[in-house]
This record gives sequence, C-alpha cells and structure tokens, in this order.
Amino acid sequence: MKYVYAFAEGNRTMREVLGGKGANLAEMTGLGLPVPRGFTITTDACKKYYKDGKKLSDEIYDQIYEALEDLEKLTRKKFGDSRNPLLVSVRSGAPVSMPGMMDTVLNLGLNDDVVEGLANATGNPRFAYDSYRRFIQMFSDVVMGLPGDEFEGYLERYKKEHGIKNDVDLSTEDLVAITNHYKDAYRSITGKKFPQKPKEQLIAAALAVFGSWNNERAVVYRRLNDIPANYGTAVNVQEMVYGNRGNNSGTGVAFTRNPATGERKLYGEYLINAQGEDVVAGIRTPEPIDRLKKEMPHIYAEFERICTILEHHFRDMQDMEFTIEEGRLFMLQTRNGKRTAAAAIKVAVDLVQEGMITQRDAILMVEPKQLDQILHPVFDTESEAEATVIGEGLAASPGAATGQIYFSAADVLKAHNDGIDNILLVRMETSPEDIEGMNTADGILTSRGGMTSHAAVVARGMGKCCISGAGELEIDLQAKTLTAPNGTVFNEGDFLSLNGTTGKVYAGQIKTEPPAISGDFDKFMAWADAARSLRVRANADTPKDAMQAVEFGAEGIGLCRTEHMFFGESRILKVRKMILADTIEEREAALDELLPLQRKDFIDMYRVMNVRPMTIRYLDPPLHEFLPHTKKEIRALARELDRSPEDLEKRIEELSEVNPMMGHRGVRLAVTYPEIAVMQTKAVISAAIEVNKAGIGVTPEIMIPLTTDLKELNYVKEVVCKTADKMIKESRTSMKYEVGTMIETPRAVFLAWELAQDAEFFSFGTNDLTQLTFGFSRDDAGKFIGDYIKKGIFDTDPFARIDEHGVGELIKVAVNKSKSIRPEISVGICGEHGGDPGSVEFCHRAGLNYVSCSPFRVPIARLAAAQAAVKEDATKKIVEVVEVNE
Amino acid sequence: MKYVYAFAEGNRTMREVLGGKGANLAEMTGLGLPVPRGFTITTDACKKYYKDGKKLSDEIYDQIYEALEDLEKLTRKKFGDSRNPLLVSVRSGAPVSMPGMMDTVLNLGLNDDVVEGLANATGNPRFAYDSYRRFIQMFSDVVMGLPGDEFEGYLERYKKEHGIKNDVDLSTEDLVAITNHYKDAYRSITGKKFPQKPKEQLIAAALAVFGSWNNERAVVYRRLNDIPANYGTAVNVQEMVYGNRGNNSGTGVAFTRNPATGERKLYGEYLINAQGEDVVAGIRTPEPIDRLKKEMPHIYAEFERICTILEHHFRDMQDMEFTIEEGRLFMLQTRNGKRTAAAAIKVAVDLVQEGMITQRDAILMVEPKQLDQILHPVFDTESEAEATVIGEGLAASPGAATGQIYFSAADVLKAHNDGIDNILLVRMETSPEDIEGMNTADGILTSRGGMTSHAAVVARGMGKCCISGAGELEIDLQAKTLTAPNGTVFNEGDFLSLNGTTGKVYAGQIKTEPPAISGDFDKFMAWADAARSLRVRANADTPKDAMQAVEFGAEGIGLCRTEHMFFGESRILKVRKMILADTIEEREAALDELLPLQRKDFIDMYRVMNVRPMTIRYLDPPLHEFLPHTKKEIRALARELDRSPEDLEKRIEELSEVNPMMGHRGVRLAVTYPEIAVMQTKAVISAAIEVNKAGIGVTPEIMIPLTTDLKELNYVKEVVCKTADKMIKESRTSMKYEVGTMIETPRAVFLAWELAQDAEFFSFGTNDLTQLTFGFSRDDAGKFIGDYIKKGIFDTDPFARIDEHGVGELIKVAVNKSKSIRPEISVGICGEHGGDPGSVEFCHRAGLNYVSCSPFRVPIARLAAAQAAVKEDATKKIVEVVEVNE
Repeated sequence: MKYVYAFAEGNRTMREVLGGKGANLAEMTGLGLPVPRGFTITTDACKKYYKDGKKLSDEIYDQIYEALEDLEKLTRKKFGDSRNPLLVSVRSGAPVSMPGMMDTVLNLGLNDDVVEGLANATGNPRFAYDSYRRFIQMFSDVVMGLPGDEFEGYLERYKKEHGIKNDVDLSTEDLVAITNHYKDAYRSITGKKFPQKPKEQLIAAALAVFGSWNNERAVVYRRLNDIPANYGTAVNVQEMVYGNRGNNSGTGVAFTRNPATGERKLYGEYLINAQGEDVVAGIRTPEPIDRLKKEMPHIYAEFERICTILEHHFRDMQDMEFTIEEGRLFMLQTRNGKRTAAAAIKVAVDLVQEGMITQRDAILMVEPKQLDQILHPVFDTESEAEATVIGEGLAASPGAATGQIYFSAADVLKAHNDGIDNILLVRMETSPEDIEGMNTADGILTSRGGMTSHAAVVARGMGKCCISGAGELEIDLQAKTLTAPNGTVFNEGDFLSLNGTTGKVYAGQIKTEPPAISGDFDKFMAWADAARSLRVRANADTPKDAMQAVEFGAEGIGLCRTEHMFFGESRILKVRKMILADTIEEREAALDELLPLQRKDFIDMYRVMNVRPMTIRYLDPPLHEFLPHTKKEIRALARELDRSPEDLEKRIEELSEVNPMMGHRGVRLAVTYPEIAVMQTKAVISAAIEVNKAGIGVTPEIMIPLTTDLKELNYVKEVVCKTADKMIKESRTSMKYEVGTMIETPRAVFLAWELAQDAEFFSFGTNDLTQLTFGFSRDDAGKFIGDYIKKGIFDTDPFARIDEHGVGELIKVAVNKSKSIRPEISVGICGEHGGDPGSVEFCHRAGLNYVSCSPFRVPIARLAAAQAAVKEDATKKIVEVVEVNE
Repeated sequence: MKYVYAFAEGNRTMREVLGGKGANLAEMTGLGLPVPRGFTITTDACKKYYKDGKKLSDEIYDQIYEALEDLEKLTRKKFGDSRNPLLVSVRSGAPVSMPGMMDTVLNLGLNDDVVEGLANATGNPRFAYDSYRRFIQMFSDVVMGLPGDEFEGYLERYKKEHGIKNDVDLSTEDLVAITNHYKDAYRSITGKKFPQKPKEQLIAAALAVFGSWNNERAVVYRRLNDIPANYGTAVNVQEMVYGNRGNNSGTGVAFTRNPATGERKLYGEYLINAQGEDVVAGIRTPEPIDRLKKEMPHIYAEFERICTILEHHFRDMQDMEFTIEEGRLFMLQTRNGKRTAAAAIKVAVDLVQEGMITQRDAILMVEPKQLDQILHPVFDTESEAEATVIGEGLAASPGAATGQIYFSAADVLKAHNDGIDNILLVRMETSPEDIEGMNTADGILTSRGGMTSHAAVVARGMGKCCISGAGELEIDLQAKTLTAPNGTVFNEGDFLSLNGTTGKVYAGQIKTEPPAISGDFDKFMAWADAARSLRVRANADTPKDAMQAVEFGAEGIGLCRTEHMFFGESRILKVRKMILADTIEEREAALDELLPLQRKDFIDMYRVMNVRPMTIRYLDPPLHEFLPHTKKEIRALARELDRSPEDLEKRIEELSEVNPMMGHRGVRLAVTYPEIAVMQTKAVISAAIEVNKAGIGVTPEIMIPLTTDLKELNYVKEVVCKTADKMIKESRTSMKYEVGTMIETPRAVFLAWELAQDAEFFSFGTNDLTQLTFGFSRDDAGKFIGDYIKKGIFDTDPFARIDEHGVGELIKVAVNKSKSIRPEISVGICGEHGGDPGSVEFCHRAGLNYVSCSPFRVPIARLAAAQAAVKEDATKKIVEVVEVNE
C-alpha cells in the first residue's frame, strides 16, 4: 500500500487519497507550474493510524522517511543540516475542505543548530530567529496544544514591557530572548526539551494533523455538513519558501475573478516582504493585486499566465495562494473559489459564453441555497460587522431587516398607521391572528418555535426576514420589553436589526441593501428550466403572493390555503359566527355570508394565475385557531354576537384540544360539517365559471387535506362533486375540475395506492407527514432535535431536509404503487421541504411531478430540480459506460 | 335461480340464503318435528330486489305464487277462500339475528269475506274479529308505517270510553266496531281501501320486510356489529296456528337450559289460550314451563323429547317458540339461546362432559367480551331497571359501582379517611395526579375523554368501573356540582350509580352483586390455555396489580410503566426536583434520591412475578405531566424547593408543549437526560441481582419507548448496557438482561427490521401507533370518531379494535421482516388493543408472541387467543380437505 506520494506522483483525481490541497498541489506540479516541492501523506495513512489504535505503522514511517530523502535530493538540502537546512511546512488537507482541522506549522526543521546555520547562510540572523520563534510558537500551540499564555501571551507582554508596537520592530536580540523563553516554557510545561530532531518534529506534526481529524469542532462540522467520519485527512509536507526575505519577496492571495461580483478580472491582495500569516494578522494593510503589475511586472505577467492556465484547466474560478521569494514566484495552493450568489451566476454564465463549460456544467456551479442572497435585501457587510450582536436564533427566513420593535400585531398596525416606516414584530410565537401584523412588519423575531413554526412558515411565504426560537432573548409582552442575555433591555420603539440568513439579532440600525437581480440571473435560470423535468409550483394564498410566485417562475400554485383567507379583518367575525353556530341552519347562514368573499378571493387568484394550474386546499386548521383567547377579546366577541361571555367561553373551552395537530381538522371538518365543503365548492366552482367567461380556461383543482382512508375521501368527494356538478350543469358550461387529496398521515401514505383509486392528484404534505411518522410535534421538537444532531443520532433536521430513509422511502413506495394504479395521476409535494435543495433532488429521484414551495424559494427549487436532472443524466452516462465496458 | 324454498326443501346449512329463522324452520321440518308448513323467500330475492331498483322481478313473483299454491295443496286450505281460508304469518329472517328489522305480521289472508268464513268455521266470531283487527293493526303499522294514533291509540281510547280494562274483555261487537274504524282510518290516511286480496297483502308484507333491511336502526346495528350490508334478509311465510283457540291451546317460549345459570333443566314460560304477542304484552302473567307438565303432561313430554332432539342436533342450548293449538304442539322457532357469561361457561363445560361437543368446540361457545360480566360486580337487574338514568357516557371500564360523589382526588381521599365507604370520583377528566384518588374510589365518572383517555385506561388497569366522556353531564368543579340534562343538580356527597358495562349513569343507590367465579371457569380457561399459542401478559405497575394479573392467569408483565411509580406522595417532590434541576449535578442528586425507591419498586414486583418475565419500560411521559398546574400548587412547591414562584412558573411554562403527545417524551428524555436512564438501569439491575440472591433467576427486560431510529436506540442502549454491565461485573454474578424497544411511531414500524438488529424484543404500542398512523389524538378524537362511524367511514373505533387494514398491515410487514433478521426476537403488543378479542385474534394471525393487557382483561385475551387458534386450525383443515379433493 502506498501511503506517501511526492507531488509529482499525484494528480487532481486523487482528492480522496491526497486530500483537496494535496491533489491540487500535485496537479499544479504536473502542469509544470512553480510549486515548492513536497509530498503528501495519504488519507489511507490516517485511516490506518486510527485502525491501528492511533499508532503509526513501521510501513508508514518508512515511506515518510523515504519521501523525505527524495525531497532532500530534489532540493539539494538536508533535514537538520545546519549549513544547508531543509525546512518544511506541514498542513492538513482533507478530501473536503473543513474548518477546525489543524492549522499550518511553518519552518519545521529548525533547531538550535540549524537556526544558526540559517542565520549564516542567509546573512540575516533576525530572519532566522524570527522563523525559529514562530516555529516554536506554532508547534507548541497547534501540535502540542500548550496554553498560549507563555507563548503568544508572553510575546505581547514582552512587547509591552519593551515599548515595542509591532512584531517587525523586534530586534534580533529581542527574538533570541523570546526564543529562549519559549524553549524554557516548553520544557517547564511538558517536562521535556523542545524537540531538536527535525524528523521527530515532522512525525509529531503529522500525528497532530491526524489527531485533529477527530477534534470536537471537526466532528461537529462533519455532522452538520454530511461529511463521512471515515474519510480521514491527508498531511502535506512542503519545502518552505519565504516571502519575507526582503523587498523582492512577498506573499498574497488572489482569485481569478471577483468573488463578490464575478467580474472577469484578477482580484486579490499581497504584502511585500511578508509571510502568509502577516496577511491574515492584519497588522499591515495589504496592497491590491493590481499594484503588483507596476511593482513587479514580470511576476505579475507570470502570475496572470498561471491564472489562465489554472482556470482553463479546472474550468472554474480559482482561489490561489502564492509567495514570491527573492524574485521567484511560487504557487502554494489553488482551489475553486468561494463566491457570492451574484458572482456564482455571473461566473457560470461567463464561462459558458467563453466556451469553457457547457450550460449543464454551469447549472451545477451555483448552490441553490445561495440564491436566497440575491432575492432578499442584505445588510451592508461593513455596517453589520460593526454592529453589536445581542442574541441568536434560527435563520428561519432569509434577508435582512432593521426597524423599531413592537410586541403585538395590533401595535405594529398602529405604529404603521402612525407613520413609522421600519417595523419589526417581536413575539414569543405567532399565531394566525398575527398575519396582518406580520405582513406589515419588515421582519419578525420570536423567542420560540423552530424552522417550521408558524412564524417561520408564514414569513418564508411572505419572503420576509424572520428569526425564530431566539430563546436567550427574554420577551415580556406585558411590559413590552425584550431583554438580552447581557441584561440590556429594549423597549417598544427601540431599533433592532435582524439577519434572517444567519439568525443574528443586532442592537440598533444597520444599513440594508436591496436585492439586485441581474440579466445573467434570467439567462441562468432559463438554462436551469430547460434542464429540469420536475415542475415547480408555489404555495400562495393571496393575489400578491401569487404574483410574486409567477415573477419568480412558478408554474402554478401547488397549495392555496383557504384558511389564510379567513383571517382578514372583514371576515373573522363571520368565520367565528360559523364556528360558534349552535345549529346547522345558523352555520349555513354564516357560511352564506362568507361565500361571496371566498368566491372573490378565488376570482382574484385565478386572474393572476391565468392558465397556470392552482390547487385549492379546503379548510384545514382546527376551528379553535380562529377563536379569541383572552378574556377581553372574548367579551368583545360576545357583545358582537349578542351572547353571554360565559356561554362563549364554554364553547371555546369545548373546542380546545390537547393535541391540536392531531385534532379535529383537515378532512375531519368536512366530514362533521359537510356544509363547509359545500360553501367552499360553491366558491371555487363559481369563481372558475366566472373567469372562464373571459376565456381563461381554468380547471379547478380541489384538494382535501389530512385524509386517512378511501371511504373518508369518498364521502367528502361526493359532497364536492354533487355541489360542483349541479352548478356546472346550471351554468351550461362543460368545465372540468379535479378532486385530489393531500397525503399527510402515515396511513394515507401507506395506503396511497388505494386513495389513488379515487383521487385525481396527490400532494404530499411532508410537514405533517414528518411530524406523524416520527411522532415529533414541530412546535415542540426544538427542545430535543438539537440534541439529536449534536449526539450524532440525526444528520439533519427532518423538518428542514426530508428524512429519505423513513418518510422518503414511504413516499417512494406510495408513488410507485399509486402510479401503477392510476398512471396519469399527478403527484407533488407542498411541505416546507419543497424549497430545500436536497429534498427537491429527492423528489426528482422519487418520480414526483412537481414541488411546491414559498414564492421566494421558487428559484431555489427550480435550480435544485435542474441540478437533480443533470446529476441523474451524469449517473446514467456512467452506468452506460460501465455497461458498455463490461 | 331459485328464489323460494318450501321448508321441506331447505336445511340449517342454508342460513345465508334462507336466513337464520328460515334455515332452522327447514331443519326442524327435515327432522320430522311438528312445524306449521310454509316457505322462505330467499336473501337472493332481497338482493335482486335492490339490484333491480327496488322492484320484484316477474320470476320472483312466479316462484312466490307457485310456493303459495303448493302450500295450499299441503294444507288443503286456500288463500282468500272464506270457507276454508289459508292464513299465514310473515316474518323477516336475516342470516344474522338483527334488531330493527320488520316485526311479524300475523293472520295475513284475512279480509271482509274471510273473517266471516272464519267465524263460521270456528264457531268463534270473537276469535275471527279479534284476529282481523290484529291483522289490520299490524299491517297498518309494520307494513304501511301508518301513525299509531288511529290504531293502537284508538283501541286505547275505545277501551277507556267503554270502561274496558283488558283486550280480552272486548266483545265481538266491540271488535267489529274497532275493525270498521281501522278500515276507515286506513282509507282516510292512505286514500285506498284496506287491501282485500290476500296475495296483494302478502306481496306488500314481503316487500316491507325487504325494505326494513335498510331502515336506519338496521343500518346502524349492522355497522356496530360488522354485518355486511349486502347480506340481505329472507322472508318466512308460514301457515298460522293459534294458541288462543281455548283452554287446550296456548303459546310459550323456552330454553333447553337455564340461560342465566346454565343449569340443565328446561326453562321458560307459557300462557294458556293466548297468542305470542300476549306473552310479550305482559297483561297476563305467564306460567313457568314446569306447570305444563301437570296441565298437559303429554304435550310436555312431547316438548321435552323435541328439546332433546334439538339440543343433540344443534349441539347447543336452544331457545324455542312453540304454540299449542287445540291439543297439538307446533314448533315456531329454534335457535341457539343467548345466555349470561356464567351460563355460557357452565353450558360449554356441561356439553363437553355430556359428550356432545369437544373441548375445542366449547372454547368457541363463550364470547370473550362476556367474561367481563363475571369478573366485575354487577347491578341487581331489577333494581337497575327501576333506577332513573340521568345520563350516559362511554362504557370505559366494566362493572357496577354505587357511591357518594366527590369532585377531586383530594376530596375522595378525605371522604375515605372520614369513613365514607362507597365513593365515586367525578371529574371533567383525570390526570396522573389523580391516581391515588382513583384507586380509592369505587368508580370513576368523567365528562370528557374517550375509550383510551387517561381515566379509561387507568380504570381498566385497576379493574374499576368507569364511565368516560359523559358530555351531557355538566360538571362544575368550583361549585362541586353535577347537573343532569334535565336540570337536576347533584352535590358533593350525593349518591350516584355507574354501570361501566353500558355507560349508564343513575341517580341514587343501586344494589350491586359481587362477581362470582365458579369452578367451571377454571376448567374452561384451562382448556382455552391448552388450545392457544399466543401468550398473554398483563400491564401492571404495582405489586397489587401484578398479583391480580397472576391470579387472572397472566404469564408475565408485558408493560411495567415506571412513571406510574413516580406519582406516589413520597416521590413526587423528588421527581419534581429532578425535573426542575438547573444543572446536571442537581438532577443527578435528585435521581440519587429516587434510586432506592425505584429499586424497591422493582424488588417488590419481581418478588410477586417470580420467574415470570417482566418488561420494564423506561420513563415515557413528557416531564411537564409531573408538575403542578394551579398557582396555589406552584406556590407550595416553590416553598418546598426554596425557589421563587415566578422562577418556577417560568420553568413550567418552558416545559409546556403544544402537542404533548408528540413532544419531549419517551426515548427522547433518555437522549437529552441520559442520567435518567442510568438511574433506572441501576434500579432494575440492582433489584434483579438482589432477588436473584434468593434464587429466583430473573432476566430483566428493559424497554425503551417511542423509538424512531436505530441510531437513537443504539445511543440509549449503550447508556443502559454500560451501566448494567458494570454493575453485573461488580456483583460477580453472570445475570443476563435484555434491551428491547416499543414500536409506537410509524417510522419505527416501517423500519422495525432495522431496529431488530439491535433490539432483543419488540412491543407494539398500538395506542400511540394508532394515533400517529391516523393523526388522531385519542384525547381529541372523541369529537369526530362518532361521526365517522355514523357516516359509515369507519366500521369500528380504531382505538378500541386494531385498524387491521392500515396499522395492522404495517405491523404484519414489521413482524415478518424483523423475524427474518432476528428469528428469535420476541414480539408483543401492549396497547389497549391487547385486551380486545378482535385485536387479539389479529395478533395471533400476525404471528406475534404475546399480547399484554390490563389485568382484568387477561381472561378475555386468553380466551380470544384460544379461539383464534381453534379457528385457524379449522381453516387449515378446510384448506387441507380442499387440497385433498383437488
């Protein structure tokens, strides 16, 4: 087994074995680019190290020493040779880029002898001792994990005592003194002398890299990012080059294009006479890369040439590190550069237009989740960096918002009417009654609830910034105060700022920037649309949302929640009358009052959607959600309804539920009160007849929620069809309509093939389905899901990304069996998962016809669907190739 | 197709075609017994009638008339012949006995002519006119559905006006006058003359029988009793015989054995000179059948002979109707007699001992549900009949209780301490805090909650009478009053009586009778135990319950709920301390206090159970269930814990949940607080080690609730095993233990085969599984499940009887796949379904190893399991026969 590769032996395809950094160093070496020589200890060595109980086998030792000898020959330097010493850097490099791993160790190979030799050889004792003190400091910190107080801390104290401001002002004598202190400190803490044998130093550093693979931060990061724990990390050992050897030396980082805008122009910065860490330390301000053109035109030209080679070779924007040592350029790293969403789109579009990649390649170059960035306002980066974080919650709905805080929907509306411009609604949690206030506010902050809490779901639907579950913020609704963990109290009218993309809550105002959608966006999305087979609809309940959805490319509405229409100020009283009716006659009278309003809702929606399909879901929430809760509200309602408050309270109490999620809701309402379904059918059908008079050609899609059984669906379908058929006949038109059902209960998904006998379409409601399959209430699961992820039981939150192994498998079975019963059945999904890229990819693979998500997630879903199709094609091609070869 | 069978053409195997009554009349005819001649119009005719859109086809008409001609020939009488008229009775008779069907029509064939002829022929005009007026009255009522006011009502008015007390005192003239009034009334209501053509009368009566198959009462009854709607009913047409032709005539009903006790002795009553309806009317008191021996010894001897023939022939106790017409005995009906549970057991055991049936036949002769009758106290039948019903709820836990009412658990305990003997606890609903009060009370009445509400489940566990969800009773806990729908107010200390078997609530005291278990019971149950393969365990949490369970034949404990042990007065404070702990150290300290108590619980339980297995489930309910709710209780607790009430309230508020059923409970508690699982493991293992010192040889079974995922189970299993293995090692014993899991979430049942990799046993928690599979909260479903059953969507309540089609299919898949992964895995069920006979049969078929149910349901489960095994064998034999024949 080969455990060590010289850079010249590897290439980019060996990322799994050499790690990302090692593979790219090897690739650059192969391309003949100026890379300091070195070798990589493989991830296989790391795996074997762990397998052998954290011991390095003789075989690996031997291969490392062999590679070291080869490196000595190549460089004509020698490890530990004071006259001509080989010094190396040691860096970790996993197959997937991962923070939390061991930092770099530079200048490894120095010891008490070698430092003297180096001083002589370079004629620069200050450089030699500065390198040695840096090495001891780094080795003690990252390899040995010694407390920083005697190293970094000592340096600071020393400078203070001697009135020295910057490291560069330390003299050789200072550095010798510091070095000596470091060595003493190392000895007194560890009980051992600072290792003087370079090989010993090297092995210790390599093992520290292996060890860092399992440090807590790395473990957490892997869990959060779905990186398998058995990948392991590689170790890169590379000859040192120095950017701090004078004014003909330097170091820098650069991108082949602008990572913020995507502009095709070298972008980066460098420092003359500096090492990499000086750039990071921020003591001196680096120069923009442009200046290099003037200062070192030959080096710049060479660098430009290398950039072009790398970009063409890797067919993507590169992010590079380089060092100039006494007039010679060395490449230390290259990788595909991280970029903003806007840049990602521009780069992808440009690369296609430059003929470097195909449209299908381009589609894979933008992370769907990134699109959120360009669809919502964001904070000005600098202003945000300067602002004070007062707490953190869940990044429930992306975007940025700044405004004055109010603690109830009513107060928000009042403030708005008083002319206040920027408003944030702050609540413990929101409920359907808060809709209008939420709609008026610029952002929403709650101290409770998860990613699928009411606040989160509604805010995403509105494309409005929301932070939910910020539990450390104490909200007192009575006193109208919000108290930060540090004790600061914010009153009604005070300014806060919310970053819904990160979950951070800031004190005061932060400048926001509007979303900027470029022409490239449309071009790019058109390519995505051409590539995908999965259709994308939106969840929208109002003409405004519907319009937004269409603008974002929704091909229809997958979920129009009729209950959201019931909360409007003009209707809630009628709805309450209906709910509190004592007789069926009273209820029907109240429904008669609602009918023309609901009918108009649908007419307005149909006019926006035009020929695009729209699925209308019948009343779903338990009726008590529509009723008032406080004594005051109840008394007011009692007056309006001319009933006694006691009577009303009793009725409200009767309607209350222990587990409302599993209560009297969904299709169950239509079973007990068929008259509600009759009213809704009248509204839908008459609205469609009305708009069809204008020649639109609507085919209403009526969706029954929360079904569990074929007979149950039958019962309600009969109620619907009887009403609809009569109206259509009376209107003397021949309009068609469809009746389908949501699949939200485990029983329905298990027996979906039966429901397919009667349902003309299906929509998987994966929010409820996930709740019921796991037995997790999404309102309550926040208390323990964090623990589940932390303890490695769950990889991801099943409410954010579909649980493919459980819920997903059930869905697949349901789709396959149902399509065998009714091949033409249209099957979609309309839970929050419809806007999650990973879940969209699953939906594509599961053979669904469409996903439906909040309007603002429509572009994300479109792109994710396209990527799923492209990836599937790629897999198919590989399979074909394999089959041909066999 | 043959639609009409003469009695002589049929036999008992033709029940499906001829109905139960018709088949048995045919069978008796075939046995040569004296049965008035007649014929049966088949259920096929009924089905065809409905298929043809409620029209009788010519074919059926023809066959009826043909059968009528044959009957005329046989009887040498003629329909409508005034000199020698054939008169018949028309009776319905479905394949399954069913109330709500059309009543009998007697004397059909009479008209204005024939009545005269009959008067002459019999020389008894009073008899003739009495027969005619009865016929018109019955025809108008049951065939035509005319309002009774002008018939029954007129008769009453007539008697009153003429000072006549009894029907027998009506003179011929009276009867003529009444008959004339009837005919006039018939004409004026229907607009038609009373039909004078006997054939027309016959067809109308037959069609009325067919029509009654779909009347509301019949439809409801079929739904409640799982009788398919497409069975249809037959119509029996039979020559009239008269028990009212003088003192050598009479009529009666009798059982071959005593249906109350099972005693082997003719049991019944008769009336001289009377028709069947006179017996029912209760105007004259019938004589006990013994007297017939003296009055008509020949007839009695003949009847005894027939009884013996019938019992031997049908191999079961018979319930018969007979008529004596002028010294001749006629049998009008025989069927297997209904009987009490005690009688059912005695008859079954006796029949085996008399050599008439096998033990396996006997097992099938007792309805498992009936056993409830003999395990609980019952009301004295007469006292109950006289008592006033003030309301009705769900028959949540069987038995009878009478006592003074108290409105809180505390008041119950106080009353008990004050020396009150018989106490009923009345609550809106109960919660775990009420356990002690429930245990002290004789019966429990709640106005809310269904068959699986807390009150219902706990009461069944205690074998205590309970009526739940009596919503029409208004309970005011503040005022301590219960108000009946009629306005009567009952105060604390007033007497009520509860029949938990029927759900009826009575005012005042009713005499109760203790349960009486005879020696036959043990003999019978031993046969059942020998026949069954499914094991039966009990759900028990206290030594008292465990002892009761063993007494009732439980083979182990399938579910020991550790949380029920947490509510004791001495512990709840410690439990609350544990829950409200701010740090893990505080929590561990509180757990340390609980450990010795919990350890003792298990020692006591193990001592009762001895070698019988016991499955201990770890803490399951959400923690807020253990916390106080009222301000007063919170203040008291704050004082005890030395914390501020505000602080406590905040913490309680934090722990509260929107959907507690799907909240932070079950295995999720052990994931977030592994220290609780550690404490419970210490308690279980050290208890087992302790009792094993006495040589018992316990193998602890530790059960993790509410699992959804293999990694989750793994996580907790590791916590358990680490603790347990260490203790066992330290104790220097080699005790084995098992760790298994409940399967309660749809995800767990779908992925059970995965869990089987790690779980050593499974127990299906079908309560939660049903809730989650349907998305029905059992606490809230009461509001709509009734509607579902009424509207024919559900046949039965899925919480009472397992939903075989959905939940059941999932369980079957889970069992099969799991057993293929781990063949030795033990699989049981421990939900409320474990005590439901239908569900037990399902468990047998699904291949489960055991069911576990409340102690008082253990005998029911044992019998149901035996019946399932016997039925399966019978099916197998039929299959074998079929295979041999093929």
